[in-house]
Amino acid sequence: MKTNPGRFFEDYRIGEVIRHAVPRTVSGGERALYHALYPARGALYSSDEFARACGLPQSPVDDLIAFHVVFGKTVPDISLNAVANLGYAEGRWLAPVWPGDSLRSESTVIGLKENSNGKSGNVYVRTRGINQRGEVVLEYVRWVMVRKNRADAPSPDAVVPDLQKVVPAADLVIPEGVDFSGYDFTLAGEPHRWGDYAVGEKIDHVDGVTIEEAEHMLATRLWQNTAKVHFDATFREDGKRLIYGGHVISMARALSFNGLANAQMIVALNGGAHANPCFSGDTVKAWSEVLDKAETAAPGVGAIRLRLVAVKQGAAPFALKGEDGKYAPEVLLDLDYWALMPI
Amino acid sequence: MKTNPGRFFEDYRIGEVIRHAVPRTVSGGERALYHALYPARGALYSSDEFARACGLPQSPVDDLIAFHVVFGKTVPDISLNAVANLGYAEGRWLAPVWPGDSLRSESTVIGLKENSNGKSGNVYVRTRGINQRGEVVLEYVRWVMVRKNRADAPSPDAVVPDLQKVVPAADLVIPEGVDFSGYDFTLAGEPHRWGDYAVGEKIDHVDGVTIEEAEHMLATRLWQNTAKVHFDATFREDGKRLIYGGHVISMARALSFNGLANAQMIVALNGGAHANPCFSGDTVKAWSEVLDKAETAAPGVGAIRLRLVAVKQGAAPFALKGEDGKYAPEVLLDLDYWALMPI
Amino acid sequence: MKTNPGRFFEDYRIGEVIRHAVPRTVSGGERALYHALYPARGALYSSDEFARACGLPQSPVDDLIAFHVVFGKTVPDISLNAVANLGYAEGRWLAPVWPGDSLRSESTVIGLKENSNGKSGNVYVRTRGINQRGEVVLEYVRWVMVRKNRADAPSPDAVVPDLQKVVPAADLVIPEGVDFSGYDFTLAGEPHRWGDYAVGEKIDHVDGVTIEEAEHMLATRLWQNTAKVHFDATFREDGKRLIYGGHVISMARALSFNGLANAQMIVALNGGAHANPCFSGDTVKAWSEVLDKAETAAPGVGAIRLRLVAVKQGAAPFALKGEDGKYAPEVLLDLDYWALMPI
Repeated sequence: MKTNPGRFFEDYRIGEVIRHAVPRTVSGGERALYHALYPARGALYSSDEFARACGLPQSPVDDLIAFHVVFGKTVPDISLNAVANLGYAEGRWLAPVWPGDSLRSESTVIGLKENSNGKSGNVYVRTRGINQRGEVVLEYVRWVMVRKNRADAPSPDAVVPDLQKVVPAADLVIPEGVDFSGYDFTLAGEPHRWGDYAVGEKIDHVDGVTIEEAEHMLATRLWQNTAKVHFDATFREDGKRLIYGGHVISMARALSFNGLANAQMIVALNGGAHANPCFSGDTVKAWSEVLDKAETAAPGVGAIRLRLVAVKQGAAPFALKGEDGKYAPEVLLDLDYWALMPI
Repeated sequence: MKTNPGRFFEDYRIGEVIRHAVPRTVSGGERALYHALYPARGALYSSDEFARACGLPQSPVDDLIAFHVVFGKTVPDISLNAVANLGYAEGRWLAPVWPGDSLRSESTVIGLKENSNGKSGNVYVRTRGINQRGEVVLEYVRWVMVRKNRADAPSPDAVVPDLQKVVPAADLVIPEGVDFSGYDFTLAGEPHRWGDYAVGEKIDHVDGVTIEEAEHMLATRLWQNTAKVHFDATFREDGKRLIYGGHVISMARALSFNGLANAQMIVALNGGAHANPCFSGDTVKAWSEVLDKAETAAPGVGAIRLRLVAVKQGAAPFALKGEDGKYAPEVLLDLDYWALMPI
Repeated sequence: MKTNPGRFFEDYRIGEVIRHAVPRTVSGGERALYHALYPARGALYSSDEFARACGLPQSPVDDLIAFHVVFGKTVPDISLNAVANLGYAEGRWLAPVWPGDSLRSESTVIGLKENSNGKSGNVYVRTRGINQRGEVVLEYVRWVMVRKNRADAPSPDAVVPDLQKVVPAADLVIPEGVDFSGYDFTLAGEPHRWGDYAVGEKIDHVDGVTIEEAEHMLATRLWQNTAKVHFDATFREDGKRLIYGGHVISMARALSFNGLANAQMIVALNGGAHANPCFSGDTVKAWSEVLDKAETAAPGVGAIRLRLVAVKQGAAPFALKGEDGKYAPEVLLDLDYWALMPI
C-alpha cells in the first residue's frame, strides 16, 4: 500500500520523536494571502517600517502563520485518524519567522491513555517548529483522541503529562530587539495601551465575517493541512465540509483587532477548545476577556493574557458556557493566549 | 469603549489632518493575488522585463493596488458611518509603488456641508498615500455623506471645495524614466497605439466575469478595508453582502485590456460614481469611451482620457444613463481617468 | 475593431511563429497561491532547504506553474475560437523556473488539417516557454479544433505532424545539479522509492477535493487564461462555467502526493485528454498507473512514467474507459507524464 493510512492509537510509543514531512519556505506570498483570508490588521505584521520602529529588522510573518504551518505538517502523523482535537497547552513562540525562512515540524509523544471502551485513546504530543538554522520557533502540546485500528492491540501503560494550566509570565519569550517605547499608537490603529486594560474586562469586537467554502479551503491548503473532512463534500454523510479549527482561530484573532489593535505579538498559547464545529455560511464574530497582565523586561512591553472566544450567528452577548458548564452551541472557539502590548 | 465606533459628521474639522492606521508593505504576494482576483494583463505590471524595456527599473505593482491600499486605510476614519460614497476628483498617481514599499495614508478635511435634514452631511477629504521615503505616491479627493451622531450637534460653516472637473493634462505626472519609444506591441497584446484612438470612440470590452462572495471578500480584505457591509451576511436586512466599489473598479479596468491593452499606466482619476450596488452572482462587463487625448513630454508617451463603465447582466449596449439623466439600473460604475499609452 | 476576435482556422499558416502576448514575472506570490489552490505537498517545491539538499540552488516554482503560465499566454492566439482541445504531445520541461524569472511564450504552427465538413480544422502548434535569458524552459505540442470564420476560405494542404507517442527516456532533461543520493524520504513524506514501483501498478490516491467557482476562477486568472467560458455564467446556455482543464491537471497531480510523494519533478508530458468537462461542485479524486520506468544519468535519480487519471464523484475504482473504448462519464482527465524519483 503506497498511500498513508495515518497512525492509529496503538502505533504511538512514549518518547518517540516523529519528524513530520514537507518542510515549507514562507514568503511575502503567504503574508499577502493571510491578509486576504483574514481581516488581519496588526501593524507590526503589516508594515516593515512599523516593525522596524518596534526594534525588529523587518515585519515577521503573522504568529499564526507560523502556528498553522507547523501544525499542518503534524496532521498526517497525528490527527488523520483522530476522533477529536482535545486540547492545547504550553504553547510558546520562541523566535519570529521571517519571509524566506523554511520551517519543519517534529513531535515527541509525551502521553498515551487508552479509553475505557478500548476503541480509542488519547495521544499527547509536544510539537516543535524548527527553522533552517535549527532554531525552535514555536512549541506547543496538543492532545487528540485517536482510533485504534485493531481492537486487540495491547493497552499501553497510561501516561498523562502534567501540563501547566497557563504559561507563567516569566517563561514568555520576547523576540530579540522588541522595544515598544517609541510605539506609534495612531499608526497602530488604537490609543489603548496595556495600562488601559483591566483584568476581567470584556470586549465585543463587533465585526463579523460570513465564511465561504472557497476561503476556508484556500487557507487550510495553504498550511498543507490536507485532512479529507475539510475538502471533500462526499466524505461526511451530511455533505458538509468541516472547517479547520485553525481557520476559526485566525478569523477570531483578526477580528479582535477592533478593540485589541495593540495586542501585537502572540507569545504563548495557554489552552484552547474548538467548542463546536464551524461550517460554510456561518458568520463568525469574536469577543475577548482580559485574564491577566504581566510586566516584561523588554522596554515598553507588557504582556496581556486574553481569552478569545469565536461565536457564530445567534450567539448571546459574550456567550460562553451554559449553567451545565457546557459551551453554548453558538460558541466555536475558546482560546487562552498571551500577547505583547505597549505599556 | 475599546472598539472604534467611527467618526460622525460632527467629528470633522476643516483643515484637520487625519493620519490613518495600519501601514502596509506590499510584495510579490499582493501582485500575484491581484492577478488571481482580476483578469489583469497589462504587460508593464506583469513582467519585469517588459517594464525595463519601458524605462522602469522593474515592474511596479498595479496602480489600483496602490489606490486600494491607500483607500482601505481611510475607511475606519472616513467612511465607517458613511451613508454614501459620493465622488472622487483630482486623483493623481505621483510615483510608482514597488514591491517592498510600505504605504501609509493621510487625509486632510477640505470640505464640510451639513444636509438640510440635519441628520447627515458631506465630508470632503484630500487623501495622500505616502511611501517609506516620505514620497506622496498618490493623492485624490473623495467626498462621502456621513451620519451625524447627535442631532443637536452644531452645524459647521459650509465649505465646499472648488474641485477640478478634470485633471489638466499638463498636471499629469509621468513616472521617471518612462519611455515608450521601443514599446513592443506584440508582447503587450494589441497593435493599437495612441494615434489609433479617436475622441468619442467607444469600445465594448466583450468579456464578462461572474462575481463570487469569496473573491470580493478576499480582495477587500487584502486592502484591509474592513467595512462590515462587505463581509457580514447578517448585517443587511436582505442578507446580501455589498461588494466594495473598488472591486468593481479593478474588475472593469482589467476587463478593459481587451481593446485597451496599451492603456498601460493610470496617472489620474478625474471622477467616478458607483452608480448601483454590485452583489455576488452579478456578471460584470465593461465598456470604455475615449474622452480626450493629450501629448506628454516623455518619449513615445501619449495620454488618453477614458470613461470606464462597468455594467451587469441585462445591460443594453453601451448602457449609461436614461433620458431622465439617471444611471441605468445595470450600470455599476462610471469612472473617468487618464492613462499613458504609446504614441 | 479594437478587441481581439481570436484567430480562425483560415488564419494559420504552416511554419508561422506566433509570439504570444503578456510576459509574466513569477514570484513567491504565485508559489503561495499554488499551495492555497491545490493540496500540493511536493517537498522540493515547498522548501528551499529541501531543494538545496537535492542539488538545486533553491526551490523552483512548481512545474505546472510553468506550464500554466506558458499555456495561458497561448489562449488568445490559439484557442479563443477552439471547439475542442484535442491533445498534447512531446512536452518537455527543459529548465527550472525560479522566483523572479520572467516567462513569455511562442508557438510555431506545425500542422493544419481541415475537417471534412469544411466548418473547422485542426491546428497543431509547438509552444515554447522562454525565460528572460532566452532559455527555453518548456516546450510541448498541442492541437485544437478551431472554427473557420468564412466557409469559403480555401482549405490548406493537410499537414499532420508525426508526433512521438511517448517522449523517449533518453530525451528527458534532468535539471542541472539534481542529485537524489542524499534524499530525505522522511521529510519528503513517503518511504517509497523508484525501485518500489512496478510497471502496471495502480495507486488510488484516496483524497478528494470539491471544487468551488471562486477557486477555479482564481487559478485560471492567475495564469492569465481569460477564455470567457471559465468566467462568465451568462456565456453558456446552461449557466455553467466550464473549469479550465489545467485546473483539473494541477488538482489531480497534487492529490497524487498521497502515494507518489517522491515523484518530485515533472520532466515530460507524453499526452493527455480532457475526457469530460468539470464543473463547480464536482469532487475530484485521482488515481495513477505506473506505465514505465527508466534510469537516468543523474545521481540517485530514476524516471517514472505515470498515467494520472482524475475522476469525479460516482466513478468506479480505477475508472477509465468503457468496453466501447470511450472514457467513462466520470473521468475528467487522462494524463501521461514522466517524473523524476529517487532510486
